[in-house]
Amino acid sequence: MMPFASDNWSGVTPEVAAALGRANAGHAPAYGDDALTATVVERFSEVFERRVRVHFVTSGTAANVLCLQAVGRPGGLVLCTEQAHLHADEYNGPEYFTGMKTVPIPTADARLTPASLTEGLSRLLPASQRGPVAALSLTNATEHGTVYSAAEVTELAAIARAHGAAVHVDGARFANAVAATGDSPADLTWRAGVDLMSFGGTKNGCWAAEAIVVFEPDAYPDLSVLRQRAGHGLSKQRFIAAQYDGYFTDDAWLRTASHANAMAARLQEGLTASPGARLEWRTRSNELFPTVSAATAARLRAGGATFHTWEERGDEVVIRLVTSFATTAQEVEELLALIG
Amino acid sequence: MMPFASDNWSGVTPEVAAALGRANAGHAPAYGDDALTATVVERFSEVFERRVRVHFVTSGTAANVLCLQAVGRPGGLVLCTEQAHLHADEYNGPEYFTGMKTVPIPTADARLTPASLTEGLSRLLPASQRGPVAALSLTNATEHGTVYSAAEVTELAAIARAHGAAVHVDGARFANAVAATGDSPADLTWRAGVDLMSFGGTKNGCWAAEAIVVFEPDAYPDLSVLRQRAGHGLSKQRFIAAQYDGYFTDDAWLRTASHANAMAARLQEGLTASPGARLEWRTRSNELFPTVSAATAARLRAGGATFHTWEERGDEVVIRLVTSFATTAQEVEELLALIG
Amino acid sequence: MMPFASDNWSGVTPEVAAALGRANAGHAPAYGDDALTATVVERFSEVFERRVRVHFVTSGTAANVLCLQAVGRPGGLVLCTEQAHLHADEYNGPEYFTGMKTVPIPTADARLTPASLTEGLSRLLPASQRGPVAALSLTNATEHGTVYSAAEVTELAAIARAHGAAVHVDGARFANAVAATGDSPADLTWRAGVDLMSFGGTKNGCWAAEAIVVFEPDAYPDLSVLRQRAGHGLSKQRFIAAQYDGYFTDDAWLRTASHANAMAARLQEGLTASPGARLEWRTRSNELFPTVSAATAARLRAGGATFHTWEERGDEVVIRLVTSFATTAQEVEELLALIG
Amino acid sequence: MMPFASDNWSGVTPEVAAALGRANAGHAPAYGDDALTATVVERFSEVFERRVRVHFVTSGTAANVLCLQAVGRPGGLVLCTEQAHLHADEYNGPEYFTGMKTVPIPTADARLTPASLTEGLSRLLPASQRGPVAALSLTNATEHGTVYSAAEVTELAAIARAHGAAVHVDGARFANAVAATGDSPADLTWRAGVDLMSFGGTKNGCWAAEAIVVFEPDAYPDLSVLRQRAGHGLSKQRFIAAQYDGYFTDDAWLRTASHANAMAARLQEGLTASPGARLEWRTRSNELFPTVSAATAARLRAGGATFHTWEERGDEVVIRLVTSFATTAQEVEELLALIG
Repeated sequence: MMPFASDNWSGVTPEVAAALGRANAGHAPAYGDDALTATVVERFSEVFERRVRVHFVTSGTAANVLCLQAVGRPGGLVLCTEQAHLHADEYNGPEYFTGMKTVPIPTADARLTPASLTEGLSRLLPASQRGPVAALSLTNATEHGTVYSAAEVTELAAIARAHGAAVHVDGARFANAVAATGDSPADLTWRAGVDLMSFGGTKNGCWAAEAIVVFEPDAYPDLSVLRQRAGHGLSKQRFIAAQYDGYFTDDAWLRTASHANAMAARLQEGLTASPGARLEWRTRSNELFPTVSAATAARLRAGGATFHTWEERGDEVVIRLVTSFATTAQEVEELLALIG
Repeated sequence: MMPFASDNWSGVTPEVAAALGRANAGHAPAYGDDALTATVVERFSEVFERRVRVHFVTSGTAANVLCLQAVGRPGGLVLCTEQAHLHADEYNGPEYFTGMKTVPIPTADARLTPASLTEGLSRLLPASQRGPVAALSLTNATEHGTVYSAAEVTELAAIARAHGAAVHVDGARFANAVAATGDSPADLTWRAGVDLMSFGGTKNGCWAAEAIVVFEPDAYPDLSVLRQRAGHGLSKQRFIAAQYDGYFTDDAWLRTASHANAMAARLQEGLTASPGARLEWRTRSNELFPTVSAATAARLRAGGATFHTWEERGDEVVIRLVTSFATTAQEVEELLALIG
Repeated sequence: MMPFASDNWSGVTPEVAAALGRANAGHAPAYGDDALTATVVERFSEVFERRVRVHFVTSGTAANVLCLQAVGRPGGLVLCTEQAHLHADEYNGPEYFTGMKTVPIPTADARLTPASLTEGLSRLLPASQRGPVAALSLTNATEHGTVYSAAEVTELAAIARAHGAAVHVDGARFANAVAATGDSPADLTWRAGVDLMSFGGTKNGCWAAEAIVVFEPDAYPDLSVLRQRAGHGLSKQRFIAAQYDGYFTDDAWLRTASHANAMAARLQEGLTASPGARLEWRTRSNELFPTVSAATAARLRAGGATFHTWEERGDEVVIRLVTSFATTAQEVEELLALIG
Repeated sequence: MMPFASDNWSGVTPEVAAALGRANAGHAPAYGDDALTATVVERFSEVFERRVRVHFVTSGTAANVLCLQAVGRPGGLVLCTEQAHLHADEYNGPEYFTGMKTVPIPTADARLTPASLTEGLSRLLPASQRGPVAALSLTNATEHGTVYSAAEVTELAAIARAHGAAVHVDGARFANAVAATGDSPADLTWRAGVDLMSFGGTKNGCWAAEAIVVFEPDAYPDLSVLRQRAGHGLSKQRFIAAQYDGYFTDDAWLRTASHANAMAARLQEGLTASPGARLEWRTRSNELFPTVSAATAARLRAGGATFHTWEERGDEVVIRLVTSFATTAQEVEELLALIG
């Protein structure tokens, strides 16, 4: 079996499993008043080199919509890419929770550039005929496997802030971005002008752990009530904290992300060399989108590979290959061998 | 230590922990397309003696608000008790998600009666001056430790349905109700006229497992999208299914609930005999609300007991004592000894 | 015919009709950028003895829900009376638009007192278990024909503000309150601690004119977008402004309200003297709620009177009698004669 | 003065003014229970050659958002053009009221074609990964002055209905579409597969009169409550009905729309012949979007013309010219003379 369908098809890492086991002992206060939660929030502050506030939830959509609610303005606009998960894949949750509109900007590789962001802003109606530009949301690593460097985030955030927008990072695969860029979590976020983020654990070896990280600890005081009202405040919250406890143990999160990135890099190397596949853009995290013939795709499936078809284009298909902490070098080589 | 603060201060049962471990092996499709989810839904159908549809979430508030959205009508009304969790303790989530109004009916012991429900309905504005009565929500076991029998649910549901309302059961402690009444899950729900329910696992030994159970499998087809939009659809959903897998193993759920009920019954017996406490109503599930002197409450705390103060009344306090699967007979006897 | 059903069954005053006619000449910028709107906002500032900001809408529910949105907090609470129009009669609009919960406080005559407001606040859950107290809403004149003096508003507002709440006045019949108390518009509102209000014209001789008045001109900057988003910003807004132009001409609004109040006072005098009716509370504006026998009610209807039945109580009914600018002394005397 | 800024800068027609005056006599039941409302709804039924249900409101945004709420599905999608007023100009009201997403389809002249609609549908995510296609909304006459014929509406509606969507017409300028196409109101709507529409009066000589018309009288029963909850149900509703009373008198609505269309046609003829202006698309209703030099635009303004700048393009500007019932042939000729 060659499992490349999604990083959320895998289970949990040994570190996370162990931490969940430890957290099960005895009784502990509910709703985040437990000692483990406090300890883990400290770990977040260490990771980000400043005191941060954390709200735990169990899905990335939850983290995203609550972040947007926190920075929302009536009738406001949320700038993002046309590939942004919160625009394309959250069943209108952002619109529902905020009453705002996502404004998708076309991109080549799911990354905004200063030029495309400025162009997107220039196409808005005059300010008197619309709501405010409430937020810019950047996904890092992006939905297409690319990443933003700290310098790039800084430049984009500055443009957004000049228009009065808050800056949000959708970090469902933030570990992969940190591992790929080598930039620190702090440099990729608050030092670059980011106000708050969705910090994902699920795709990188937790089972349901997402964290809203607020970089100015007193900002967005309504987030706690927003989370409870939405049913995203868990009574036995210590079990989310426990996952991050395991996640951060001995930098496990960066090791697993580096591994996933490396597996994808090896895949990318092999695909680039293969006559049977074509890559329309280079990626740096754990996702690849090769174009292959329909026959090749069928052969891969018959050979035991799992993956999603991204787009059908006549005789060809764009497929998505995703690696994770659990991907093995053998699985990668088997897939490459099958592609030929 | 005598932990009586809440059943959500405990961890998970050995059965649930074991099932979570089993589910961690290998890769599996996300968003509920995995084999374990299918198996566990079968178990729900067996438990309810009919084919049911299940939507898994991770909090009771999520289950409640999504159920109310599913049956919602614009400007509609949701009848419940003044103690109902969804009226009093969900940070207006039901109003936010549905645009409806909860209509709290006063009760003696958190239970509606045919008389009080009829009285509540009669006090509404004429139908032409308000939205429709969209739902009746019954909590079973109730927030005050009491329970409804199948016959009682049947009678209340019939009144509600005659007014065009859907009938919802908030079963955050449904296992305790089944164990206390001896009535079957089917008799307590769909055979009694219930349309859908929130079936809780968290308080009875899961860590974050709640299920929306729809009794007419084709009803409320929007629930799936509603759940995703709200960020309550988990990618690694198999881990919620796994909890119910352990929960239902060899009727673990009824054994743990029976144990919690028995611990509470022993506490009730002891408190009734004690001059140091007074019970204003009898309970049948795993919660008790004795009135004690402030001095007694302080002595209990000093002795290592944890519990919530429910209401302060001059020199007296009403305290809430909750038992769970993890409560031991020794803890109960120690508490009774301390009360004296 | 004796029309006592509602002040919104009447047409418009000659002053308002004339102003509407004047406004029809020529072309004028849309959406409030016209000269008449600017002039009329000046009139509001004169009426309130300070510079105010005004947002025009066409219904009282619109004014109320937008005011509550402006001061809203997630999961927040809105304190009001159990008779408050925004709690009882707006089809859950306030909950829908704000996601907040109205918290109705019982009253004897639809008026809060410092004691009842303090009692209501004391019954809320602890602050950590609920959303914030976002607003106090006072209806003046009330839904039951009573009024608050400036001193009373001041005292209630101070209690609310001490809990962090904004203070809103639902002034659907504000003219009647000003006329009844003799207190100035300023003393009844911003000098008493009121942040914003719904200032009604419709019930007092306009046809669809309601104004949101914000006393701190820079406060609640989102109100303009909130109004547009809700479809309450009219393109030909000058016609709402025109109604207030007529309304304020030579204090027409206070003359018509005084007339309506006087007609109600004469009715009250007559009913008090009559053996055929009983008044459970005294009113001071333009509404009365006498209890009469069912036979008397039927006789009144047969004689040509129109009015609403407020409550049926066995052989008796509480009826509501409302006077307006258009009520004549003859209609009052005819009704009193019929009651006998 | 040459007023070409907008059809909502004009006042009301003599017919509408007269009807408003008639409606002011005496008292009448509120909230639409009056005789005039019933009479005017009959007129709508005659206009559409079938029994229809009508809900009156005072703004086009209100009509649009309530129509979309009525046909809404959770997480649903609303297909429209990128120029659609409800997508571009309603401050996210449709998203706020419905939780749905507008899906804008690019067009050449603000008109969908079967090809572009089919293409737009084909670009959606697979049905399992998104909410349902809830509605197609067609603006007729469009925001760019073009119109759909009955045959065109029929073809587009059929495509939408095959995808399960309801079909809505935004008829803010419906009279202009009827006048331009010569197709009957029935042929342009329900006979073409339209479920419900926003039928505007404001832009064509009313002052604030918009009607939601439901073609299947029992469909969308929640609309009445939806309207009240949104504050769009007026107490003195007879004054909206009165405007339509005047509107329909002796086909006044079609005469005024034909006049506006004719004035625009004469403008179009003159602009086409002029070297000083360029038309990028031909229009058939009462709006034109000529491209002129910045100098020409300035000269027009200096000469007393009012109009909106639509788009700045270096030395050129696209301007919008709108005619109305009040536009005179002399104003048209003066403008053409100024353009040269």
